[in-house]
Parts: sequence; C-alpha cells; structure tokens
Amino acid sequence: MKVGLIGFGKTGKAVASVLLQSTEVNLQWVLRKTHVLEHRSVPEFLGIDSHEPGLIYSIEEYPAQDLLKRLPVDLIIDFSSQEGILYYGEAAREMGVAVVSAISAYPPERISYLQYLAEKTRVVCSPNITIGINFLIIAAKILKKIAPYTDIEIIEEHFKAKPEISGTAKKIAQALTLPEDDIKVVRAGGIIGVHEILFGFPYQTVRLRHESISREAFGNGVLFAAQHILEREVGLHSMEDLMLPYFDTGSSCLEDE
Amino acid sequence: MKVGLIGFGKTGKAVASVLLQSTEVNLQWVLRKTHVLEHRSVPEFLGIDSHEPGLIYSIEEYPAQDLLKRLPVDLIIDFSSQEGILYYGEAAREMGVAVVSAISAYPPERISYLQYLAEKTRVVCSPNITIGINFLIIAAKILKKIAPYTDIEIIEEHFKAKPEISGTAKKIAQALTLPEDDIKVVRAGGIIGVHEILFGFPYQTVRLRHESISREAFGNGVLFAAQHILEREVGLHSMEDLMLPYFDTGSSCLEDE
Amino acid sequence: MKVGLIGFGKTGKAVASVLLQSTEVNLQWVLRKTHVLEHRSVPEFLGIDSHEPGLIYSIEEYPAQDLLKRLPVDLIIDFSSQEGILYYGEAAREMGVAVVSAISAYPPERISYLQYLAEKTRVVCSPNITIGINFLIIAAKILKKIAPYTDIEIIEEHFKAKPEISGTAKKIAQALTLPEDDIKVVRAGGIIGVHEILFGFPYQTVRLRHESISREAFGNGVLFAAQHILEREVGLHSMEDLMLPYFDTGSSCLEDE
Amino acid sequence: MKVGLIGFGKTGKAVASVLLQSTEVNLQWVLRKTHVLEHRSVPEFLGIDSHEPGLIYSIEEYPAQDLLKRLPVDLIIDFSSQEGILYYGEAAREMGVAVVSAISAYPPERISYLQYLAEKTRVVCSPNITIGINFLIIAAKILKKIAPYTDIEIIEEHFKAKPEISGTAKKIAQALTLPEDDIKVVRAGGIIGVHEILFGFPYQTVRLRHESISREAFGNGVLFAAQHILEREVGLHSMEDLMLPYFDTGSSCLEDE
Repeated sequence: MKVGLIGFGKTGKAVASVLLQSTEVNLQWVLRKTHVLEHRSVPEFLGIDSHEPGLIYSIEEYPAQDLLKRLPVDLIIDFSSQEGILYYGEAAREMGVAVVSAISAYPPERISYLQYLAEKTRVVCSPNITIGINFLIIAAKILKKIAPYTDIEIIEEHFKAKPEISGTAKKIAQALTLPEDDIKVVRAGGIIGVHEILFGFPYQTVRLRHESISREAFGNGVLFAAQHILEREVGLHSMEDLMLPYFDTGSSCLEDE
Repeated sequence: MKVGLIGFGKTGKAVASVLLQSTEVNLQWVLRKTHVLEHRSVPEFLGIDSHEPGLIYSIEEYPAQDLLKRLPVDLIIDFSSQEGILYYGEAAREMGVAVVSAISAYPPERISYLQYLAEKTRVVCSPNITIGINFLIIAAKILKKIAPYTDIEIIEEHFKAKPEISGTAKKIAQALTLPEDDIKVVRAGGIIGVHEILFGFPYQTVRLRHESISREAFGNGVLFAAQHILEREVGLHSMEDLMLPYFDTGSSCLEDE
Repeated sequence: MKVGLIGFGKTGKAVASVLLQSTEVNLQWVLRKTHVLEHRSVPEFLGIDSHEPGLIYSIEEYPAQDLLKRLPVDLIIDFSSQEGILYYGEAAREMGVAVVSAISAYPPERISYLQYLAEKTRVVCSPNITIGINFLIIAAKILKKIAPYTDIEIIEEHFKAKPEISGTAKKIAQALTLPEDDIKVVRAGGIIGVHEILFGFPYQTVRLRHESISREAFGNGVLFAAQHILEREVGLHSMEDLMLPYFDTGSSCLEDE
Repeated sequence: MKVGLIGFGKTGKAVASVLLQSTEVNLQWVLRKTHVLEHRSVPEFLGIDSHEPGLIYSIEEYPAQDLLKRLPVDLIIDFSSQEGILYYGEAAREMGVAVVSAISAYPPERISYLQYLAEKTRVVCSPNITIGINFLIIAAKILKKIAPYTDIEIIEEHFKAKPEISGTAKKIAQALTLPEDDIKVVRAGGIIGVHEILFGFPYQTVRLRHESISREAFGNGVLFAAQHILEREVGLHSMEDLMLPYFDTGSSCLEDE
C-alpha cells in the first residue's frame, strides 16, 4: 500500500519512522508547509535503512492534484494542522484517495468538510489514534454495560507543563457518559502519558491502564487504520469503528481455544 | 428467582450474604454436609436484615428430590466440594433445575457428569466466577487478536501461604495460549489476589488489572450467572459464554453516544 | 508486656485479634462503654486459641484506678472515642501506665489533656497508626529534601461511601507542606484504602504506594508502638518519632552489607 | 563547577544535554575515543542554547595531563567504557580532579584501580546513578529493618529485547540480601524500565516503585553526585553514601512542621 504523510513535526517524524520500518506500507512522500528540508530523503534524514522513496516536498511546490498524479498513493496520513486538509481534500475526494487524519480539535466547519470528502472516499478521523486507547474505550463501554452498578473513575497523568485535561481523557469520559469535571488530573515531572479507567465493584476492582512510551505509538495506530480502512465502504470512520469487528466474537471465541 | 446454595464454608457464607442483599434472587435454603447449624436462619446467623427464608439443612436430612419438592428453587448454586454435585445432580437434571457450579478442579469424570446433566438442564461451570476476571479474559483475547505482535505477560500476586500458581492465572494463560511456566508469581504478606495481564507494544503498554477485595466478589459473579442462565438453552455454559453477548456491540456501540 | 485495650468496635476487635496472636504482648482486658458481652472472653469470642486472660469489662463496673490495681497493665491501647481517655487518663498518669491512642480528630482541649498526661507518663498519639503509612511519610519528606525540584502528587482511593478526603491523605499533605485541595480523591466500589505519593522527576517517576488490606493493619502498628514506647522518655510521642531512629543509618548502613 | 564528560554514546549525549541545561555545572569538554565530530560544539550538535564551551575532543589528540592543563575541570564524568578510566585516571589522581564514574560491571582489577585513585582524589562509582533508584534502595533497607517479618518481592520490567535480569534489580536484591533468582522479570514491548520493591505485611502492602522515562535520568543523578562529592573527603564513595545524610533526620524532622 502506497502512502503519503502530511506534517513533519515531532509526531510526524515519529510516525514516518514507524511507517518506514513497516513492511505493510510504502512511504512515497512527506509534505510540509515550508521549504525546509525540501527534496531531502526521509529515510536518510531519520537514519533509517529503507528503500522507500520518501522524499520531502513543500505544499507550495505542487497543487495536490499534480502531486497525487506524479506520485500516486492509496492513502494520505495527516499529522499536519487543522488547515492541512484544505490543501489535499478536494484532490483526495476526486481521485478516491483514502484519508487517515489524526488532527485533534477540528472546528465544526472542518468536520463538515470531512463529511463532504467522505461522500466520495474513505476517511478515518481519530484525535488519539493509538491502538491501546481505542481498545480501552471500547472495552470500558462493554464493562459498563455488564456492570452498570460500578463506580468508574478516570485518572490521567502527564508532564507538569501540560496545561489542561488531556483530550484523550475527555474522550474517555464522553464515551462513558461521565462528567469531564470528575477526571482526576495528575501533573508531575516528565510523565509522558498515563490513562487509567478504574471500575469499582463492591468486592473487586478492575483497572484498564494505558501508558504511553513515545509518540511512535501513533505510528502503530496509523498502520492499523491503514490496514483496515481500504476494506471499508466509502464514508467517515473512527478508530473504534475499525476495531469493533474484533469484538464481535460470536460463540466462536470459545471454540477456538 | 428462587435459589438454593450448597456449601457454607468461608466462600459459601460470603456468597450467601450477597444473595440475601440482592433483590433479584431469593435464597430458599442452604445445604451443608454436616448437621452443624441445622435449621438455623442464614440471615440471622450472618446478621443480615432479610425476609428470605434461608434455613440451613443437612444433606443427610432429605434426599435432594424431596428437598427440591418441598422447597423448590429455579437454580442451585454450588460452592461445596467436588462431591456436592453427586447429591443433587440427578434430581436437578430430572426436574430441570439450573445449576451454577463454582467448584474448581473437577476431575474428568465429574466434567463428564456435568455434561450428562447438561443434556436436560442448564449448567454453568466456572472455577473463578468473578465478573472482573471473566471480563478481562475475553478482553485480553480480543486485544491479542487486534495486536498479535505484542508481548503478553501475566503477573499474579497472592498471600505468602498460597502454595501454587493461582488457578485463575493458569486459566488466563490457557485462554491466551501462553505457557503456564511464564506466569510471574508474587507471594507476599496478606495480598488477597491481584491478576495483571500486561500487553507490551513497541511504544505503549496496556495493563488489564484485577484486584480482589474479598470473597464476596464471587457473589456478584453468581448473581450475573443467575440473571443470564435462565435465558439460555439447556446445555453446559461458561461465564465467558454468558458474557460474550455484551461484546457483540455491532455498530450500534458508536451510535449510542 | 501486659496491655489493656479500650474500644471494641470493628477496629478494636481487629486490633484485639492481632494482640492475642502476638507473643510480645499479653492482653489483660478489654474495656467497653456498654455492658454488652461483659465478662466474656475475648479469645473465645474471636475464636482465637490463646491463654491470655482478655476478659471484657464495662467502664461502669470499676473506676479506672481500681481496674488498674486489680488487673495491672504496662500499656493502655485506645481505639474507643474522643471521650475514652477521660475515663482512664488520670489513673494512667498517676500510676505511670503508658498510653497508645489511635483516636483521630481529637479536639484541641483533648490534645492539651494528652500533654498534661505526658508530663508524668509516656503517651503515643497517632491517628493512622499503620507502619506502612508512617514509613511512607518519613520517606517522602526525605525524598523531597533530596529532590526539592520534583512535583509531588498525592492520590488516595477509598470505597464510594467515604465522604471526605481521607485523614491520612491530609496528614501526608501537611507533612509535605502541600495544599490539601490538590489531593486527588478517587471513590469507587469497595476499595479499602490506597495512598500513593508520586514524585515526578524530569526523566523518572517514584511512586510510594500503600494499600490497606484490612483493619488488622492497625494492630501491627500498635505492636510497633508498644515495643518502642517503653524505651522512650516520659512525654508525648508520635509514630514518626518512634520510627525515626531506623532512619538514622549513619555510614554503618553501607558497611553492614 | 567546571566538568568534563568522557563518553558520547546515547547515554553520554543524554547526560550532556542535562549538564548543559543546568546552571550548577559548566561543561568544558567532551572526550571520545574516535575522531568523529572532533572540535564540534556539543551545545550546537544537541541543539541546546548554551554559552558553555563544550567542544568535542578525541583521546588521541592530547594526553589527559595536557588536556586537564589546557582546559581544567573540577570533575570528570565517565560514561565511556571500562577502559575510559585508564586514559585519565593517573592525571586525575595527580591533579586532585574528582571522578564520577557510571560504568557498570567494572572487572575486579578496575575496582582496585579506582581504589588506588581514591587514595588521592574523590571518586564516586555508581552503575545506576539515578536519584530514584538509589533513594529506593536506602528506603527499602530501612523498611526491612523496621518490619523484618515482611515478605519482599522485587519485580522489574523492561523491553522485550533486554536479555538478562537488570543490573539494577540485582543491586536491589543484593542490598536487601535476597536471592537474585527470586526477582520477577517481565519483558514486554518497549518498556523503558520499571523496578518495584513490594513489601507484603499481613494486612497491608507497601510498594516502592521507580519508572524510568529516558536516559536523561542519569544526568540528574550525575548533578546530584557533582553537587555533593566536593564536600566529601578524598576516597571512594557510592551514590547511597552521598545520599545517606538526608536520611539522618534527627528529631528535627518533626520540629520542621
């Protein structure tokens, strides 16, 4: 599968390194807003041994239409900014190129634009695109249905400088219809990111805990999305949506083992 | 729903107290091997305010057939020993009374006997009948399917005197097709029981952790089984089996929010 | 060492069972406000095999002076109420009987009264008399001195029904001069009690974590106090005070090993 | 305080970045075995805004004696290899330059050499030079003395590829006179490093837990050593040794509050 990446900040670089090391996707190019590093090789820049082309282009060099014709991809991965999609959206829609966007906090008009794109092509939109967090959210929703009488607490820990409640914690609260104000927010030192969903039963406790090690975790999430989106129908999808079939165990779950 | 309980050791007592405090089942009687406490009231003995009959009988007083006729129940809950089922099995089979057995380590011939009973009535068999553990096992199986490249470690912690690997940890290992020898066994002080299933991704960690507080946790598991077994067909069921429908989220899972 | 216990509620009973099972103290009597269980044997009541006398008396039966003459003890352990000390205080002062009080939230006038008693006898006053918590408080104070630039967070978890911030968490905050309002309070199900003091360094995290299993933990703290108070001078002492000598390692700490 | 660093591998670079960002030490130079990056500026290479000189030299360029005369330092920090010390040892001894060595697994003859250097200058030798781990080791030794009846378990978690029991876990076991074979070794995914010392009391649990976030943690340990070694006498010191005075709380610990 040929993919292009837009956005080459800290997270974009981390994602690029995971993509280059994966045998399942082939990184065709990386797009940036600026001309910095233009036409440099991403594998070389990141010190990764890879035969994938992965040259860096500026959005000012070509219109997206031209870029997608010269260097066609099956999938565009977006770690740029809220504006990134305006550059390539129309071209992706027209040419049926799938989009995996990990931008958080799109304004409503951009969500509408995503829906417009999704009329003609496959779009995944997920602000926290790690496998672990998306798995925990679904699992927690299920456990809440199994044991609605439990008390659920969400605890998130991040580095001291992080100003607000984490967007991921808010998403968990929303998924479990819990008030955001009840999230316990721990800020200390250089903690990269911990999210715990605690279920208090009368006589037992279940803790679903996710610990981030580095930004590359987003890369594995992107790979998961890339592997599953092309099997899906045209439309707007979430990571949860792509993951749900794994939960439809049927009775075969037992038989397998 | 009318229930009877066989077995009144430490765990049996804890389960009885949960049953008495639940509005969903009605404890008709408790059966013991010995004559100790015969005809005493369980609510009174446990100091629980309840109008449920709950008298204690000895298995020597009546044949099971007679007991089930005089004091009929929909469900027999078994926290006795490997032999308990021999007392009431035939009668339950004949009269179509459901059975929830929490006996661990049945020998093969007793499993065959359970299957024989299950030809004519509903039988649930679960050595660790807590909701938390059974949920974690299913969730872990799903996560393993989603991310087969992760390294999975099972860590269990119990009180110093517990001699062997916990049966629950073994069950988890079996469910995930991991070697029992790799289970990390922590023994210290008075820890009641902790089980953690750790999924190591390259750049993130997911921990599914269960902490037991007291034996009453089995009571909530029994209630769950009681609430779901009567909707099921005649046959042999596991807790996982009863829990699986909650995992069949369909796409409705997303719509709910 | 002969000891007497005042207070026989849930915690008092738990402490009595630890005292009876210890070879280091000898439980002479238990005092209650009411006549309930009067003259019953505590070992028998608790089902513990012990040759210690341990009869139950009511404070209405004898004045404290008479009780201490008939059934002398070296130490009175107080798990009663804020008023308990008024019964035996004067007698303990006069006869030089040591006092270990685990009453939390004494009003100021009672603290003054303790100081008055401490003019003539040894008094330990500790609202949370577990070894684990008192150790963690001292250790945390030391780590704060070693690394004053770390961010410290206090997280406490208790059963849903517990209404306020735990007194222990407040004591930790006070010891580390942190605002009580910053304590993260988790309330869920039947959690008995967890306290975590988290130190966030820029590139590492230290967690000092205490998990309560049952009220008997107070019994082990009382034993520790009992073993150390008689070596101390007349006066008012805290658990931290009794524990501090273990921290004065000198350079011998290294040599030992 | 002027410092020089020998060793510029991954950990050496991480330590250099912490040193450059600290106001308490001034990085004069970095020494490497090879000529790679020779005479490059470390602040520039690491992208850190700093006015400290920090040029890179090869050990082949000058004898240590000459280097220390041209670019004098108070302290040499060694993150090179077992051989590094042979380059600068004699010169440091003669000129009274202090040494902080973080080399793990020195062979016996090198330990003897360190002792020889320590006859004339201050030497700190610590294979795991983080503040957190060294604090936990001392704290654990103290808790073991307070509660010798507890069961202690050591659990360490690292990335899948790490082949053996961690050296740090072994050091903890040694400090607590526990058999190395009992260490529970968890290997999964990309876990950077977790060490937990668990104390099991009969009715409570204390967990002393250290989580590494990145190699820079060694930098903060080096700073701690640098700040304390110059106050000490000539001789061989360990991190524990430097940290112990913080544990000698005296009774003043209580008075502070």
